[in-house]
Amino acid sequence: MFHALSDATRRAVVERLAQGPASVSTLAEPFAMSLPAVVQHLGVLERAGVVVSEKTGRVRTYRLVPDGTADARTWLDRHRLAPERRLDRLTEHVRGG
Amino acid sequence: MFHALSDATRRAVVERLAQGPASVSTLAEPFAMSLPAVVQHLGVLERAGVVVSEKTGRVRTYRLVPDGTADARTWLDRHRLAPERRLDRLTEHVRGG
Repeated sequence: MFHALSDATRRAVVERLAQGPASVSTLAEPFAMSLPAVVQHLGVLERAGVVVSEKTGRVRTYRLVPDGTADARTWLDRHRLAPERRLDRLTEHVRGG
Repeated sequence: MFHALSDATRRAVVERLAQGPASVSTLAEPFAMSLPAVVQHLGVLERAGVVVSEKTGRVRTYRLVPDGTADARTWLDRHRLAPERRLDRLTEHVRGG
């Protein structure tokens, strides 16, 4: 997952897909890159569970997996300094009550 | 940042440092790895702003940067599907009011 997001092109693709599904050619447009290169990046994101694709006729459309980056967010959240996590819990407690 | 966290050894180091500061040799202990290899991993984490180190006498101690992974968390949070973000805001609104 972190590997999938360690590439600037792949992060740009995720940023675009956060707006909604898009075809390979739409996704390739902003990049000075061959279609196969973009398809390869999309493959990395798909294997990491960040995106899924669907083929209709000759057009393959990609979309973000709902909460596909949840594992990464959970990991980052869990492995912060203990005092910060405690402070967050306190803040939530104060807000909640 | 995502690159720094894309390696299992480096993530294990971050998990250990979330418990508190540690010396290079303490950090190297769980890994079947040479000290220089561990130091190299720590260098990647340090350049990414995830950890900092301090040398006292002959011992170099590493610690997590407070909220050093905030950028990654913010990015992941921002680039989820729009409906999920809206749902989160609604949940917060309902909890808050």
